[in-house]
Amino acid sequence: MVERRKPIKVSEAIERVMQYAKEGDVSYVPIERCYGQFLGEDLIADHHVPPFDRSPYDGFAIRSADTVSATRANPLAFEVVGEIGAGSTFQGTVDSMQAVRIMTGAQIPEDCDAVVMFELVKEIMNEGTAYIELKRKINAGDNISFTGEDTRKGTVLVKKGTYINPGVVALLATFGYKEVPISVKPKIGIIATGSELLELDEPLQPGKIRNSNAYMIYSQIIRAGGEPVYLGQFSDELETCYNQVKDALDKVDFLITTGGVSVGDYDYLPAIYEKLGAHVLFNKIGMRPGSVTTVAELDGKLLYGLSGNPSACYVGFELYTRPVIRTFLHSYHAYLKKEIAILGADFPKPNPFDRFVRGHLTYQNGRMVATPVGLDKSNVVSSLAEADILIVLPGGTRGFEQGMEVSVILLEDQEGTTLIEFNKPNVNIRRSRPKHG
Amino acid sequence: MVERRKPIKVSEAIERVMQYAKEGDVSYVPIERCYGQFLGEDLIADHHVPPFDRSPYDGFAIRSADTVSATRANPLAFEVVGEIGAGSTFQGTVDSMQAVRIMTGAQIPEDCDAVVMFELVKEIMNEGTAYIELKRKINAGDNISFTGEDTRKGTVLVKKGTYINPGVVALLATFGYKEVPISVKPKIGIIATGSELLELDEPLQPGKIRNSNAYMIYSQIIRAGGEPVYLGQFSDELETCYNQVKDALDKVDFLITTGGVSVGDYDYLPAIYEKLGAHVLFNKIGMRPGSVTTVAELDGKLLYGLSGNPSACYVGFELYTRPVIRTFLHSYHAYLKKEIAILGADFPKPNPFDRFVRGHLTYQNGRMVATPVGLDKSNVVSSLAEADILIVLPGGTRGFEQGMEVSVILLEDQEGTTLIEFNKPNVNIRRSRPKHG
Repeated sequence: MVERRKPIKVSEAIERVMQYAKEGDVSYVPIERCYGQFLGEDLIADHHVPPFDRSPYDGFAIRSADTVSATRANPLAFEVVGEIGAGSTFQGTVDSMQAVRIMTGAQIPEDCDAVVMFELVKEIMNEGTAYIELKRKINAGDNISFTGEDTRKGTVLVKKGTYINPGVVALLATFGYKEVPISVKPKIGIIATGSELLELDEPLQPGKIRNSNAYMIYSQIIRAGGEPVYLGQFSDELETCYNQVKDALDKVDFLITTGGVSVGDYDYLPAIYEKLGAHVLFNKIGMRPGSVTTVAELDGKLLYGLSGNPSACYVGFELYTRPVIRTFLHSYHAYLKKEIAILGADFPKPNPFDRFVRGHLTYQNGRMVATPVGLDKSNVVSSLAEADILIVLPGGTRGFEQGMEVSVILLEDQEGTTLIEFNKPNVNIRRSRPKHG
Repeated sequence: MVERRKPIKVSEAIERVMQYAKEGDVSYVPIERCYGQFLGEDLIADHHVPPFDRSPYDGFAIRSADTVSATRANPLAFEVVGEIGAGSTFQGTVDSMQAVRIMTGAQIPEDCDAVVMFELVKEIMNEGTAYIELKRKINAGDNISFTGEDTRKGTVLVKKGTYINPGVVALLATFGYKEVPISVKPKIGIIATGSELLELDEPLQPGKIRNSNAYMIYSQIIRAGGEPVYLGQFSDELETCYNQVKDALDKVDFLITTGGVSVGDYDYLPAIYEKLGAHVLFNKIGMRPGSVTTVAELDGKLLYGLSGNPSACYVGFELYTRPVIRTFLHSYHAYLKKEIAILGADFPKPNPFDRFVRGHLTYQNGRMVATPVGLDKSNVVSSLAEADILIVLPGGTRGFEQGMEVSVILLEDQEGTTLIEFNKPNVNIRRSRPKHG
């Protein structure tokens, strides 16, 4: 008996899933371990930058009032009364017509209000005393980086939920975050279904293939910022499967199963959802691949029933699981960036529904070029390793030609975007050169 | 006494460093831990894909010879003698005018040579026996995915040194790599120098700043694929520093120091190189920032003397250390990708030397837009968190305007490129619309 399912739109499916997205906890790790994680709280400046008035160059600190009458014809001499290396301060006083040699980054002496660069003065020695000769007027404040001019204490520098890259780490160090607040990663369970699946160390058998989806999803979870927990394969027996899912739900924040969601003869995940009393958010989406992608919810926990087909499984994860993970990590940009690219090869298949094709991104004179991977049969397997985008081909189109503009979803980008940006209209059939560019 | 140094070109500096680049070892990790690492050996297909003749659709396996006379006017009936789910095989024989129901992915029975899709037949029951009715001729080989048609056993699917993404993991699983050969990461020591530096947990003091470079470099090393080892700060005393460097070299594959390479009054790294008997490859490069970037070599081990200035330190690492790390990881694409983008803001400073400006990448109608970060003083600190490119402004130019084309180095890309591609000429002063494009 084949069940009839009513397909919903991709945007509607995302909306239904995101109603159950929630934010996770925050914990602290030593700064050495924060790279590649996500900020758990806003990064706030704990002091002014610069923390004191300092010199941006090597030069001489002086009192600008002393320089008023300096001209080329009438150079003035200043006695050099000391020097300040970076990290040290000048302890004495600087009187009229005196100067202090100062290194880049060092603190301006209290009596001084300007710095003259080395290149503008002539150094002279006179009876064992060092002088500099200056041929022009210097204004108060010249060559001084003033306290707080780069950043005021208390400023929010990086928002919580941001991916921590080397620049963020530099800021964390500057502001004394020896321990860094990071977003706790959601634990995501994976169960593989399908009686044709062998584990990796099993020898090949007639009719069977190795379980690659579970490990693919495992890596997609890490890339998205989650913590994968592989729970093994489903048993062949309904009651046992039911118990597997029930037990799994106690241990994880979300659960992903791969396979078992079609309406074919051997798929019984729908029965398990029913027995659990889970609320099925949808079980049919107007998209290819992955039309049978199913998401259910039980006590606020999401259960993802991704397709057993590798492409469908891959796409379903990126569209419906990734934004939930990023929300858990407190991201303001939970969605993957969607941009415009030129199609690098013909894609002749008609698209009655929105199609998401794995592709590879290259660049040509500053334009992005998106080429579907795996179109050529003799290359279908290895080319999957190159996938770094999803090419979005809107439904109701008759195939695409090389050179047309298409929307692409950037899979390796860590910055992300908002739902509004993600939902902006896809490029439809347009030629390479946009009218407004 | 200020030493005179002769600046060399960036490409020449890279070439000198790369003469000492060497490949590292290979070790094995469980497949669950390989994501984000680098393949230590070529990934090779250990079996044909598909491993057996299989059905790409749900349908009925038949013997095509039986269908020759089938037409719309003269439909033929085939007895359904069994069914095959994915993962199982058909054990019986299929005789003339018989068919076997077959699921997607299942193995074609030995006697059959074609599959008819569900949609093309009518299923009928006659006295308890199931039949299908077929109205057209089917050719031998129709709807069969033949053994090895996607990939032949022994094919190299992914080259060693490749960054392991979810697609690569799927391939590793498909071909039974329960343990994955990965490139052992080089150990890279970091020593921070500068008497103005405070550790992160020290309270701020007049004239001093916190040590952010060491942690920034620490994260850049991880991003590049290395294993950072923070060895603390240099002492203020030459003999002790010398011993610190000497000890460090025994523990690491490369050593990075930050600061201490200028010809200023307080820098003594050059003295340490001399005392070690290290061969200085260069100590002056025609670039900004980072002109004092110094690299020395001792017994084949590279010692990087990066500038104490944060931007210079950042840039020096990406240009001169990263390709050495990627070579250690066996990459054929050890260099960062360099592409063309539109400048998103004026950059009025003249460039007597090649300039590398940290910037942020955005997209506009499929074109990449590169905007320098930290130009606006009130934003200089926080904007560093956004840096994901280096904008290359060639020497001998008088400043750049918004809308001009510039070369950009993509810092977050993991695919990389070759030296030849990296060295292709930079974009010079050209307007937004290329003549050939």
